[in-house]
Amino acid sequence: MVGVRRSDLFLPATRETPGAGSDAAKLLVRTGLIRNFGSGLWAVTPAGQRVREKLTERVVAAMDAIGGQRVRLPGLQYADRWRESGRWGGFEDEMFTLENRDGQAMCLAPSHEEGVVHLLDGRVRSHADLPLLVYQVESKFRDDHARNGLVRTKEFTMQDAYSVHVDEPGLRETYREVRAAYERVLDDVGLEYAIVEADAGVIGGAASEEFVAPVSDAGGDSDRLVYCTADGCRFGVTDEHDGSDAHATGDACPECGGDLAASDGIEVAHVFKLGTRYSEAMDFTVDTDDGSERRVEMGSYGLGVDRLLQTLAQQHGDSDSLAWPVTDWGSAAPYRAAVIPVGEGEVLNVAERIHDDCGRDDVLLYDDLSVGERFAESDLLGIPATVVVGNTYREDGVVDVETETGTEELAVEAVAECVERFAAGEEEEEESGCGSGAIG
Amino acid sequence: MVGVRRSDLFLPATRETPGAGSDAAKLLVRTGLIRNFGSGLWAVTPAGQRVREKLTERVVAAMDAIGGQRVRLPGLQYADRWRESGRWGGFEDEMFTLENRDGQAMCLAPSHEEGVVHLLDGRVRSHADLPLLVYQVESKFRDDHARNGLVRTKEFTMQDAYSVHVDEPGLRETYREVRAAYERVLDDVGLEYAIVEADAGVIGGAASEEFVAPVSDAGGDSDRLVYCTADGCRFGVTDEHDGSDAHATGDACPECGGDLAASDGIEVAHVFKLGTRYSEAMDFTVDTDDGSERRVEMGSYGLGVDRLLQTLAQQHGDSDSLAWPVTDWGSAAPYRAAVIPVGEGEVLNVAERIHDDCGRDDVLLYDDLSVGERFAESDLLGIPATVVVGNTYREDGVVDVETETGTEELAVEAVAECVERFAAGEEEEEESGCGSGAIG
Repeated sequence: MVGVRRSDLFLPATRETPGAGSDAAKLLVRTGLIRNFGSGLWAVTPAGQRVREKLTERVVAAMDAIGGQRVRLPGLQYADRWRESGRWGGFEDEMFTLENRDGQAMCLAPSHEEGVVHLLDGRVRSHADLPLLVYQVESKFRDDHARNGLVRTKEFTMQDAYSVHVDEPGLRETYREVRAAYERVLDDVGLEYAIVEADAGVIGGAASEEFVAPVSDAGGDSDRLVYCTADGCRFGVTDEHDGSDAHATGDACPECGGDLAASDGIEVAHVFKLGTRYSEAMDFTVDTDDGSERRVEMGSYGLGVDRLLQTLAQQHGDSDSLAWPVTDWGSAAPYRAAVIPVGEGEVLNVAERIHDDCGRDDVLLYDDLSVGERFAESDLLGIPATVVVGNTYREDGVVDVETETGTEELAVEAVAECVERFAAGEEEEEESGCGSGAIG
Repeated sequence: MVGVRRSDLFLPATRETPGAGSDAAKLLVRTGLIRNFGSGLWAVTPAGQRVREKLTERVVAAMDAIGGQRVRLPGLQYADRWRESGRWGGFEDEMFTLENRDGQAMCLAPSHEEGVVHLLDGRVRSHADLPLLVYQVESKFRDDHARNGLVRTKEFTMQDAYSVHVDEPGLRETYREVRAAYERVLDDVGLEYAIVEADAGVIGGAASEEFVAPVSDAGGDSDRLVYCTADGCRFGVTDEHDGSDAHATGDACPECGGDLAASDGIEVAHVFKLGTRYSEAMDFTVDTDDGSERRVEMGSYGLGVDRLLQTLAQQHGDSDSLAWPVTDWGSAAPYRAAVIPVGEGEVLNVAERIHDDCGRDDVLLYDDLSVGERFAESDLLGIPATVVVGNTYREDGVVDVETETGTEELAVEAVAECVERFAAGEEEEEESGCGSGAIG
């Protein structure tokens, strides 16, 4: 990602607010990160796409680290495999169906259990080829009643993963690994969440858990979540699950004794032990040690990339501006830093020099708009660091670097390294915003 | 991309060959890079996906370098904008249409001129906001009669870009830049191609050019191409264009005087000067200097990622094995190198150590299959460098590094750096396969 000049950037901030949805959904429209394409459909602008790419990179890295292999399955599929699995015409009426020009029945895949069985079946012949964990990051389609921006849409980007095993203990192990990988992703991007036992719904299978993020206003599209507020405890229950009545705000957490709280909740990820649900319906078997055939055990896992973007905005921003958390991993903010010149001439030259120094990173140079608009927009976008070249530079030859931990003065040549370290999340661990480079 | 162990890899090589298409299409199935999902639909396996990612990275870098801004438009769209542009129900009967649960007419976008107008219209108000160049790398859908593997499908990944301008000279300049960026991409990945004047077809507009790759067998899905064989000359004509009869094999190139040749040709990219075709139909205007309104000029550009993958395979492989060119940029091969131990024990240990040394790069360690199968598969896949740990190691303590320029012996500790430099394309410029590290 190279440095971006504001004058070149298409970032269509607007006063328009969509009719429905949470404050965060409306704010994503107002900031210009997304634009509506009719009920349940959204386009993502260059700034919004940068957030999506950062989130995608994070989840890809976490999946690769546990041996996940990235594949790509068609989103458009024929009916045959769906009839075999018994999900054709089902899926809670949310499956888009159509015909090709030769009259063959097709659908837009809402999930890919059938696709993965077709990809692997007949090629994975022996128990020695297992376990396998494959994943993709592609569009899914569900004819859902659209509401609340990117959280409930007709087309959305999701990282979905599928594992195949000889037996149930093998499934349990990979299930734990993917569950831990999802925890890492959500911790890294700075999301607060609980892990709740869940209903397997249209995916089916033996057991499943949801990652649910508490939010103050889910825009009418939410479970009610009771969750533990203690650091690192992920206990939670939602009202879709039996027994949620047993817990309420103020109760002690049954896992750690911490305080429970209640709020709206948005599901951002879901992990399923499918068991033999699909291998039985679709007759997917492998040879075992003793030469007999055995139906494989499968797991299914999904983490919504677009959903995560909006849920992060929802948890950390307010109704007037976005705020992207900065962690050890970094930040999902569209730009790690904004360089704002206050004035023209030498001040602008210095700002451009700083921007060039940071040039190979994602830093936004404000070379248009009025000075007031520059500060307002970088605040609205939640850009975590702002480099201000203005009065302090004119008086003392130094620039102000503003982050949530405060403002400090830096020599011009120290800014790029500071921004680099800040973006890598190191800022959190230091007393001073940028450590050794500090002058003030 | 981390190192991969063959025993963990899902790479379903098969004797199955699809009923139709070129040798390359069949070979991509036999090597296990793709798997058929019914007429016109394909899944991509982990090795195939690696090629797609490398090609995508290359085209993204080229677009970013000329100021392209990546966006994401929905693939599923409502009819309204298509009715406005006049393309609803048209598109040579290749547009997939469907209804949502509320009975609203929708389609799967075969291209995104309408989408880009909707993304920008009302947000780009003034000539000062232009020019703009946006692009995406996403699925497109066309209900085409499927044949020839990834070249003609119902769902495919394409990098499509769109530019918007105040006037025609502005369009001409960006058109030239994108055209040059596409040349860079194709040169980098090692494709031979001609640039031919073309019919604008269903995209429409004032003028267009196609990038057409000569291949010996286009699997029945091809234009007939007459092209110049001289180095660096891109002259070509196809039989879809008037005047192609004027040129034949053996004639002198009208541009450079070089030799013309004839062959099948596959279109891998297309650049269009749309002019005001869409801004007139959809009333997309900007304010000009003098306060009046003006319909914008637009350009449209597309480079098929999946198509490029297969066309590369077609041009450089033969009917028995793939071969990915290595250039200054590197190579689109799924793995830059394979490490093949011939034997067990110490030989396997050394192979694993070399694989670990190369570990952060895309190197495949053959830790399963028979020795014969290891060589056969790495050859079939067209992996450009093979590191063999066997007799030479047992006798002299060195390993053999085999590339198309020959075999040389290297000390174990020199292999990782050699593979790194080879993958970066530096090999081409040196006498010896890996330069200073060479012993033999």
